[in-house]
Amino acid sequence: MVSILTNIKYTNKLVQKYSKLTRSINEEYINIHPIQRGGILTAEAYKALIAYGDGYSLCDNCLKGRIDKIENPPVVEFLEDVASYYNIDKMMLTGAAREAKRIAMGTMVKKFPDRKTVIIDSNAHYTTYLAIEVNNLKVREVPNSGEPEFKIEPADYDKLITQVKEEGESPLLVLLTHVDYKYGNYNDPKLIGDICKKHDVPFLLNAAYTGGVLPIDCKDFNADFITCSGHKSMASSGPIGLLGFKEEYTDDVIVFSKIQGNITSKSFPNKICTVMGCPPVYGAPLMTLMASFPEVVKRTQEKNAEEESKKINHVVDIITKIEGIQLLGKYPKVHPLTSIKTEIFAEIAKTHPRKGFFVRDEFKKKGIIGMLPGISKDMKFSTYGLTWPQVKQLSNAFVDIAKKYT
Amino acid sequence: MVSILTNIKYTNKLVQKYSKLTRSINEEYINIHPIQRGGILTAEAYKALIAYGDGYSLCDNCLKGRIDKIENPPVVEFLEDVASYYNIDKMMLTGAAREAKRIAMGTMVKKFPDRKTVIIDSNAHYTTYLAIEVNNLKVREVPNSGEPEFKIEPADYDKLITQVKEEGESPLLVLLTHVDYKYGNYNDPKLIGDICKKHDVPFLLNAAYTGGVLPIDCKDFNADFITCSGHKSMASSGPIGLLGFKEEYTDDVIVFSKIQGNITSKSFPNKICTVMGCPPVYGAPLMTLMASFPEVVKRTQEKNAEEESKKINHVVDIITKIEGIQLLGKYPKVHPLTSIKTEIFAEIAKTHPRKGFFVRDEFKKKGIIGMLPGISKDMKFSTYGLTWPQVKQLSNAFVDIAKKYT
Repeated sequence: MVSILTNIKYTNKLVQKYSKLTRSINEEYINIHPIQRGGILTAEAYKALIAYGDGYSLCDNCLKGRIDKIENPPVVEFLEDVASYYNIDKMMLTGAAREAKRIAMGTMVKKFPDRKTVIIDSNAHYTTYLAIEVNNLKVREVPNSGEPEFKIEPADYDKLITQVKEEGESPLLVLLTHVDYKYGNYNDPKLIGDICKKHDVPFLLNAAYTGGVLPIDCKDFNADFITCSGHKSMASSGPIGLLGFKEEYTDDVIVFSKIQGNITSKSFPNKICTVMGCPPVYGAPLMTLMASFPEVVKRTQEKNAEEESKKINHVVDIITKIEGIQLLGKYPKVHPLTSIKTEIFAEIAKTHPRKGFFVRDEFKKKGIIGMLPGISKDMKFSTYGLTWPQVKQLSNAFVDIAKKYT
Repeated sequence: MVSILTNIKYTNKLVQKYSKLTRSINEEYINIHPIQRGGILTAEAYKALIAYGDGYSLCDNCLKGRIDKIENPPVVEFLEDVASYYNIDKMMLTGAAREAKRIAMGTMVKKFPDRKTVIIDSNAHYTTYLAIEVNNLKVREVPNSGEPEFKIEPADYDKLITQVKEEGESPLLVLLTHVDYKYGNYNDPKLIGDICKKHDVPFLLNAAYTGGVLPIDCKDFNADFITCSGHKSMASSGPIGLLGFKEEYTDDVIVFSKIQGNITSKSFPNKICTVMGCPPVYGAPLMTLMASFPEVVKRTQEKNAEEESKKINHVVDIITKIEGIQLLGKYPKVHPLTSIKTEIFAEIAKTHPRKGFFVRDEFKKKGIIGMLPGISKDMKFSTYGLTWPQVKQLSNAFVDIAKKYT
């Protein structure tokens, strides 16, 4: 036995510190944080979460040394079903959507080592920029129309691709954020996909906020790659991401190990280098994603997606009638992620004893949480998955708070 | 609204397929799969799992745009506590231990671009080899003594480092698997750490099977890096890994983003490129790790770790008296991960109607699961965390099955 002691002691104080990791407020409040709405677990996912809570729970069922080859529970079939759901040839599990973007770009770098430019919309998530950075690539942004719409024009993709080509380089990859994190603007992927096809450049659709929320058809969109987030939009505990790709990229994405031990000659030809053998989704992340999948299929049927659009447009219509509240982003809304300017609240904050924190206080009194603390000038929220009474609770809260202070 | 349909339909068949993702057998059986024993959730972790089950649950509490800066729940303090627990300067969260190894090697590559060789023990996990491969490095294995002990001699590390240096290159990194996945052999890190210090080469301790199971003191070991697994050995749902490192590597490991949007001038200097902003551990993985931490501290106190050694040695002592069962790996055992050759079962399988599957059948009848199906020649198991009655249930099972067939 090694005769050392751990450098931190098991004390009552230590137990106390880590004993209050509960989150019971969820049951009493509506959480309108856009990052949360699409990830809320279904009842089926909760059951899977508890059953597969232990570390490597799923690996008990691994007979072939790879998570994507497990047949019972039906992981193999699930990956086929998800590929079919997004209508793309192949589907790979990753640690998160950001990892999927990193991997997709890395794949393209290997395929086209001379190409360095990634064209993205200027509303892209910071992880899109980081995926470019860690792959040592150059970013070129498609402009947006600025306040208040921050709209991306497909024609600008065409222009920029042409421009990069005229500068002497074929773009490595063109990326579109299906719905962006900030304004929740919906972009039609087909328009960009067709432009990419015309220019013969690969097209990646980042569907972190839409895969599992809106209908998606990669073949129709001419998308070469799609990146999705289980915990953001597919009712999975996660973290778990998905990278969908066209058949032709299979050998570039799924890179099998070739290393060999110099003494032992050990080799691992069955293991995928791209995800370090297996992606880190061994138990609860994947099982909750699978458990929620039927519900996710159901909720993305067109009529359900349209009902969700109605909810957010209902709220937007009511609250933008309040003087000092202005929608940022396009209208009408397709996706419920919404950004507003709240000059009315910023004014109130100037003289309120709680300053900007009053916004969160007031909404919390009305059973609504998820705002950033201390922020009164603007706000982001999502109505995704709220019931109609909750939708009305939210719009009423805006109206009542505005009335209270004016 | 986009007018497309999802390509898979919500049907009863779909619902059925993903409706049986339960794992209730756990309650009736002891699972002796070595990959599972250290990851079994504590009661506190179960509570956290349920409270933080939703996708990005922890991100509600994020005020500074980084998971490692969240103060409530106490993530900041937790990272300090875990660093203190392993007695290393800094601690970073990663997707899994394999990611931690990939990152540590990538860090060293940037620091020493001319160095290409990673020296590892020849019992290292396949992900150690893959981390070397994805970083485009060369592997050099320290030999082991072969059957039956598969022992690694510290003197061979000294020899190999010297040899690589004589060949004209300073090794990029020296890695020791604290306890290996196959034989469960315990290696004293201090002996290797001292050799590395003498040669002035960085030392990484892979503690995937030991961090959270055995006492660890990186300063005493002279370890530059430590890689740990929350779901393997720290009673976390995970997947979640930890990368501990010496202060002097901080700027190499924690690489802040420098990219800038060419039109928007957007930049993200607060985001860490190494983990794509934040590592994929946003909700349940980190919260269960934190919830189990006090218990993990308690169970790695020396007397508890010694008690676990007694359990496995008790089983080994009894079952190796059975003719046709032989221990692989060193004896006595420090860590409960154990490998045995089971010629007795291989013999029985030759004429048994269920062939090699009879082994799993027989153990299952005795309330024990976790064996690979169809395998009768050898077996891996761990007694970690079993009660003494369960330990005896396990050793009795071997004796009874042997008796039944001889």
